[in-house]
Amino acid sequence: MALNQNRTIAELKELRALTGDENGAQRVAFTPTWRTARAWLLDKLAELPVETHVDAAGNLWSTLTGDSPQALIIGGHMDSVPNGGWLDGCLNVMAGLEILRRLTDEYKNGRPPVTVRLVDWADEEGARFGKSLFGSSACSGKLDMDEARTLRDRDGITLPDALREIGIDFEKVKDSGIELENAAASLELHIEQGPVLLDLDLALGAVLGTFGVERHAITFHGQAAHSGSTPMNRRRDAFLAAGKMSQEIYRIAERSHGGVCTIGSCTTKPGIVTSVVEECRITLDQRHLDAAGLAQMLQETRAASETFAAEGNVRVSWERLWQIEPRPFHPELIDLCAQSIQEITGTAHRLPSGPLHDSAEVSGAGIPTVMMFTQSLHGISHNKIEDTLEDHLHQAITAFDRLATKTIHWILQQPA
Amino acid sequence: MALNQNRTIAELKELRALTGDENGAQRVAFTPTWRTARAWLLDKLAELPVETHVDAAGNLWSTLTGDSPQALIIGGHMDSVPNGGWLDGCLNVMAGLEILRRLTDEYKNGRPPVTVRLVDWADEEGARFGKSLFGSSACSGKLDMDEARTLRDRDGITLPDALREIGIDFEKVKDSGIELENAAASLELHIEQGPVLLDLDLALGAVLGTFGVERHAITFHGQAAHSGSTPMNRRRDAFLAAGKMSQEIYRIAERSHGGVCTIGSCTTKPGIVTSVVEECRITLDQRHLDAAGLAQMLQETRAASETFAAEGNVRVSWERLWQIEPRPFHPELIDLCAQSIQEITGTAHRLPSGPLHDSAEVSGAGIPTVMMFTQSLHGISHNKIEDTLEDHLHQAITAFDRLATKTIHWILQQPA
Repeated sequence: MALNQNRTIAELKELRALTGDENGAQRVAFTPTWRTARAWLLDKLAELPVETHVDAAGNLWSTLTGDSPQALIIGGHMDSVPNGGWLDGCLNVMAGLEILRRLTDEYKNGRPPVTVRLVDWADEEGARFGKSLFGSSACSGKLDMDEARTLRDRDGITLPDALREIGIDFEKVKDSGIELENAAASLELHIEQGPVLLDLDLALGAVLGTFGVERHAITFHGQAAHSGSTPMNRRRDAFLAAGKMSQEIYRIAERSHGGVCTIGSCTTKPGIVTSVVEECRITLDQRHLDAAGLAQMLQETRAASETFAAEGNVRVSWERLWQIEPRPFHPELIDLCAQSIQEITGTAHRLPSGPLHDSAEVSGAGIPTVMMFTQSLHGISHNKIEDTLEDHLHQAITAFDRLATKTIHWILQQPA
Repeated sequence: MALNQNRTIAELKELRALTGDENGAQRVAFTPTWRTARAWLLDKLAELPVETHVDAAGNLWSTLTGDSPQALIIGGHMDSVPNGGWLDGCLNVMAGLEILRRLTDEYKNGRPPVTVRLVDWADEEGARFGKSLFGSSACSGKLDMDEARTLRDRDGITLPDALREIGIDFEKVKDSGIELENAAASLELHIEQGPVLLDLDLALGAVLGTFGVERHAITFHGQAAHSGSTPMNRRRDAFLAAGKMSQEIYRIAERSHGGVCTIGSCTTKPGIVTSVVEECRITLDQRHLDAAGLAQMLQETRAASETFAAEGNVRVSWERLWQIEPRPFHPELIDLCAQSIQEITGTAHRLPSGPLHDSAEVSGAGIPTVMMFTQSLHGISHNKIEDTLEDHLHQAITAFDRLATKTIHWILQQPA
């Protein structure tokens, strides 16, 4: 079968009808609806000469064996957040399926020059246990077992118990790492989860890597005091210092050339209308594609918080909530991705990914990796209004297929 | 009996032992402990030739009839907040009692030139129903009956029901206004509930009036967006605009010459580390002794909020929570108060009151009024650590007694 972009778009709609409702996609990992989505996918795969199995972490692998054991991986995820978008994750799986069909058709002996493997990573979203990239991080070996072992869902069920129910032994999930043994390159097509391509009026972009992330809680400690009787120059106002941070992070992001900074929450104590704020806690999320840039942003933010604390005669304390290093993608694969986009759309824009993706884990395991983004019509994901123009989907599948071809040739050119 | 400042200080300690615990004063209005305090006070009053009764709003009046029916009122309150300070409110009642003793001793016929009345206002603090100045606002006629009728405590009991239990008919509380019929002047001694006198190292101050207050909730409405994928220049960040307000209110207060502005609370939605803030609500409390100054501060704050909203491409909405106009005290009584302080301490400082007091209600009813403040050792009230040096208490009682004498003479000089 030749590449048929319209078939893929039709299948994505079929999946939406099968596993979504009026609130959006409901393919939350390990739920009955997610299993429905996988069974539907397996039906499609059954028409192809591929070997299919689930690995030790619950990831579904479909292998089209080639002349070389060296493998091209095409990875996506069928799972969604609750009330999610119709394209997030499954666009890649379905485009990958279409590429398997095209390769089967092109190589009449059924064997492309290298092995090509489609993987549906398990629980990319982490919607149930609050821990994303489960399947890919188990496979890459980066999963923090001690942390994951204690994760619980809202009903108090632990991740190991939930996995046991679907036949997975938590203590053995890293055995899935064997799947990467012959991996030579990895590709992922994804809807952009932001408005960058929309703003530029571009259908597609080549992804430079995923941002490193620093997440911290910053608490300013002042002194409660009566709002009527305390002169302004006597106050130790925790909110004054925190408020200054709101603007400073924009200046820090601007100086960082490409980083983003967000204060996502603010809480005040005692938090009453008649008292100066004694304690103000804000959360900080900083992201940058460059590790030095990320470290610089963090250092500047710390320094600013100390300056503002000193100015207001308050104290500041920091607590790290989470961090991950930047995961830059492979420069040669980024070039191939940009070439593919250029050939189809005439313009090749390169952009970093703010959100994390399974590709960050694959790249972190040392596999040359790249992602391609397609425009998000409203710049919004994890929401039922997530959408991409059908023209853009058509171009995306075409360009991604070209990227697969170029990457196969690239693999063949690598020294053994 | 001659004025005996040490007796008053001893009685204040006696009251503390009787109605306080390790957490502070517990004389919450209408509770058994408050009734204990009143009964203790009545025992002391019984030794004097005064007529005592409770008015229609629960205020306790003790009248030393003078040659003229024109009356000098000395007002305070025995009630405290839970875990309150030992001096807040009752310092004045006990100093007033001592003045009654001194007058009884001085005028051997038992009749001073004008009538002198000590009042213990009911529920000044409003700790149970969240509505301060209950007794004095009923007496002044300013109590909002429709609002007060619906007030409930934490157990859901309404204010009218609670009053009925202690024999007060809510619908008749304004009948207490008759008590002010012959009132010619009103005095109140109070611990300062802030650090102004402490900072100036002064024992006493003459109070210019109580601040007018404007209380508002200001909500900025932006757009939630992913912290990793949303470029800084695409954000509609409600916290950015709110944060700018934190500094602006300090500039507005400075320009106002004497006003104070407080942002006491900040809440954010969705309030998660990975999202730009969609909605940020802050509360604003502004106070000024001058009505025009207060209006100017409010107008400037509104304008600033609209500027910051426009800068950040967010929307702002305002909701008035409460307001009260400034209540300047009587200029001639302020002068008499300052003279009394000057005579005893050598320095007469004049200052406004940020917090409200019963005197604001009495002044609002058209009675010439003034207050005297005594230094607060830590600048803090409504707390068990509230304190005043005994030397300062001694000076306060002496100066306040002088002010009573001067005010009696002032009343006699007024045209009939």
